[in-house]
Amino acid sequence: MAKKLIAEFFGTFWLVFGGCGAAIFASQIAPSADSGQIGILLLGVALAFGLTVLTMVYAVGHISGGHFNPAVSFGLAAGGRLPWKDLLPYVVSQCVGALAAAACLYLILKGANGGELVQFQGKGGEFASNFYGEAVYFGRSYSMMAAFMAETLLTMFFIIVIMGATDKFANGKFAGIAIGLCLTLIHLICIPITNTSVNPARSLSQAVFVGGEAISQLWLFWVAPILGGVIGGIIYRTLLQRTDEEMTAA
Amino acid sequence: MAKKLIAEFFGTFWLVFGGCGAAIFASQIAPSADSGQIGILLLGVALAFGLTVLTMVYAVGHISGGHFNPAVSFGLAAGGRLPWKDLLPYVVSQCVGALAAAACLYLILKGANGGELVQFQGKGGEFASNFYGEAVYFGRSYSMMAAFMAETLLTMFFIIVIMGATDKFANGKFAGIAIGLCLTLIHLICIPITNTSVNPARSLSQAVFVGGEAISQLWLFWVAPILGGVIGGIIYRTLLQRTDEEMTAA
Amino acid sequence: MAKKLIAEFFGTFWLVFGGCGAAIFASQIAPSADSGQIGILLLGVALAFGLTVLTMVYAVGHISGGHFNPAVSFGLAAGGRLPWKDLLPYVVSQCVGALAAAACLYLILKGANGGELVQFQGKGGEFASNFYGEAVYFGRSYSMMAAFMAETLLTMFFIIVIMGATDKFANGKFAGIAIGLCLTLIHLICIPITNTSVNPARSLSQAVFVGGEAISQLWLFWVAPILGGVIGGIIYRTLLQRTDEEMTAA
Amino acid sequence: MAKKLIAEFFGTFWLVFGGCGAAIFASQIAPSADSGQIGILLLGVALAFGLTVLTMVYAVGHISGGHFNPAVSFGLAAGGRLPWKDLLPYVVSQCVGALAAAACLYLILKGANGGELVQFQGKGGEFASNFYGEAVYFGRSYSMMAAFMAETLLTMFFIIVIMGATDKFANGKFAGIAIGLCLTLIHLICIPITNTSVNPARSLSQAVFVGGEAISQLWLFWVAPILGGVIGGIIYRTLLQRTDEEMTAA
Repeated sequence: MAKKLIAEFFGTFWLVFGGCGAAIFASQIAPSADSGQIGILLLGVALAFGLTVLTMVYAVGHISGGHFNPAVSFGLAAGGRLPWKDLLPYVVSQCVGALAAAACLYLILKGANGGELVQFQGKGGEFASNFYGEAVYFGRSYSMMAAFMAETLLTMFFIIVIMGATDKFANGKFAGIAIGLCLTLIHLICIPITNTSVNPARSLSQAVFVGGEAISQLWLFWVAPILGGVIGGIIYRTLLQRTDEEMTAA
Repeated sequence: MAKKLIAEFFGTFWLVFGGCGAAIFASQIAPSADSGQIGILLLGVALAFGLTVLTMVYAVGHISGGHFNPAVSFGLAAGGRLPWKDLLPYVVSQCVGALAAAACLYLILKGANGGELVQFQGKGGEFASNFYGEAVYFGRSYSMMAAFMAETLLTMFFIIVIMGATDKFANGKFAGIAIGLCLTLIHLICIPITNTSVNPARSLSQAVFVGGEAISQLWLFWVAPILGGVIGGIIYRTLLQRTDEEMTAA
Repeated sequence: MAKKLIAEFFGTFWLVFGGCGAAIFASQIAPSADSGQIGILLLGVALAFGLTVLTMVYAVGHISGGHFNPAVSFGLAAGGRLPWKDLLPYVVSQCVGALAAAACLYLILKGANGGELVQFQGKGGEFASNFYGEAVYFGRSYSMMAAFMAETLLTMFFIIVIMGATDKFANGKFAGIAIGLCLTLIHLICIPITNTSVNPARSLSQAVFVGGEAISQLWLFWVAPILGGVIGGIIYRTLLQRTDEEMTAA
Repeated sequence: MAKKLIAEFFGTFWLVFGGCGAAIFASQIAPSADSGQIGILLLGVALAFGLTVLTMVYAVGHISGGHFNPAVSFGLAAGGRLPWKDLLPYVVSQCVGALAAAACLYLILKGANGGELVQFQGKGGEFASNFYGEAVYFGRSYSMMAAFMAETLLTMFFIIVIMGATDKFANGKFAGIAIGLCLTLIHLICIPITNTSVNPARSLSQAVFVGGEAISQLWLFWVAPILGGVIGGIIYRTLLQRTDEEMTAA
């Protein structure tokens, strides 16, 4: 169990350091008016989040299963793939890893220019925090209900993909690719709505350093992803998973 | 059969929610004149569509085969890979899944700002609907014949790739990657021409919420993809597929 | 042999239709000054070329080996992987497929607006033709020698990757991914230098429709890639390929 | 051993020629004010570096193990995966390959326009050299300590991913994908901080041609990556790697 928790620590560290780090350091780079925007854009941020998971699933997935996300652990418990007694230690490891990564990001950012906590994207979304409603800066603001619905639905599908890709009747060696790129896809949809959480540990880690509204809105990024994860786990187990009898009969 | 249809429902839901959702919410984001364009661009939309299919093929492809597209089901039936009697239930499931996803996109978008159905790209292409001719906003307009030819050819090649990548003599475990990224490729070519359909269920789902010209042009996005799919299935079966005798002789 | 040639025809058609098509239709899209540039950019073009090969290697690579490129066929012949007697039929099939694809691109483009053969990028590079020297529009012009060196070196490495990834001691099932993404990588480097050929059939197909300088410069895009391919094949065979004796001794 | 060193030579050549070449030739292309920025952006550079490794791991990884990076060789030696006596020849081969590639890039660039060594990104980062502190041009400057911390942490995780993905209990055939895309991820985070090294041979090869500050700052891009690599190797071996006894007991 110790190695599983160490693997979850490093995996979630990497998810936050890589995904949030790419957003903070590299998403918007416009050296001059002539050059135009040359940063990695929201597309690069989406890719970065997915690649943190893809790389760590192949690196330590064989040790811990590669969750790196409390909503995934809840979903897999609901889906019958993780013993409930393992849930709390997994979630604690994930949160500690996420917080450690955010501290490193904070230190690097303090070493830049005047050292202030740079607001990476105008109003809302300082550091790489999640948000909803008027806090948002992306032209349109989405309501709390819209944000809740998006986070719930996307986490639900994330768990369906995870359960399906690791199903014993599936082509399981490709699960790391499918799961990592599923997280990329989720970010391609949802960054303008909530900056994309689907991961309570990731949201916690940023909110702690940003404070204010990022803390007061944090509840949504725990409730919606965990709810979505649990629904996804139940849907896959009850509606999609085939039994051994069904398979031998076929 | 029930689990197959449920799998097709969720898969096509994900294709529309993820692909059209990325286009609607994230393709164009320009927070300020200084920042320039930082959205996921047409490249990110192309990637999103492909990843919906890649992820769902690995998640539920082992249950239903992973079509998520009436033109694919028609093509595989023509290619001898799907029993004709399964065609109608597959297509119905796909359309229901696509419509449910479009309804969710509509609800989230209604929760943004004033709640109007935002036109995502000037004239034509509201929501993420398909179009041809003068309806289009991308600088150049393509004629109906050009749009028909592009949709037919691209769906034809899509089916050839699907048939080939799942051929029993091929390297079938990689089919999910090849098929998903083939859809990305198709979008890299065709978004400026028709917003890219190659999938009648996807086109239907958007047209229902947009109405007007999106409905009156919908016929093309059923006829051309299905025609292309059937041609592709026949080409692969008659010109490319090798028989057991050929293989044992070789 | 017939099915091999048909596979090479469709594969090369797809390479030109997809890669050059993405460049022509979608690389630059700027609907308004406010929106900024939202096209697939040179990055999307690079991805498109690679995905044509990735998809077709998994689709028909099991039939013909999946060359889709005369320089690859020459390189593999020099490397001892293709019988010399198969070289000419392969090259002819590839050129016919490339020309057919260019004709389809031409027809679709004729169906746009006024129907002129749109210059896709200012001076040089009409349609998606290759170029060198002053013909080029990308800010900097590269000399003929620089273009020759780049095309030769890149094709040489392309063949080394192909020979290595399909080596009997290698992890051959991933060859389609390695080879396809290698072509993407080559385009990420070389589009501003020559619009990237490394494929004589692709260059021929565009030059025929553009005429003028595209024809008079065509020689370089046959000589340099074939030379690079042959060198690559020889390097891999003589310096890198291990013999059965070496392997059993190890 | 000879073929191993030849493989490392070609692999590191490709890493520098492809990754730095994409940065130098294609990252920023703005043909006109109307077109906006159409280059491959920092995202494309990140992808290019990753694809050099992905392609070469599948091409020659079966020969040499596919390091292409002195920090990786140090890390794997510390992690017990490379005999210490092989370390020096590997590092020498890598540096020679990197320098040869930089010479080719220099020749091609000399063949452009007036032939001066073009500064690819304003102050700092000429050619594709690494930098820290005020040398940097990306809006924000990061301190030497921030740069050191970023390079060390990222190389440490790079080695953890490499050790994990090639662990005998892992899904090792996917290691090329995981390792290559891990390098892409690292570039998505760190280009604005140091132009991203995590590879002393890559930094050396650029500094030699740029001189000046690129040389005086070179020490950091040897010390930090090698330190990070060694830490990563030790972490994986002591905290994560499972023994045969653990596995048979489980």
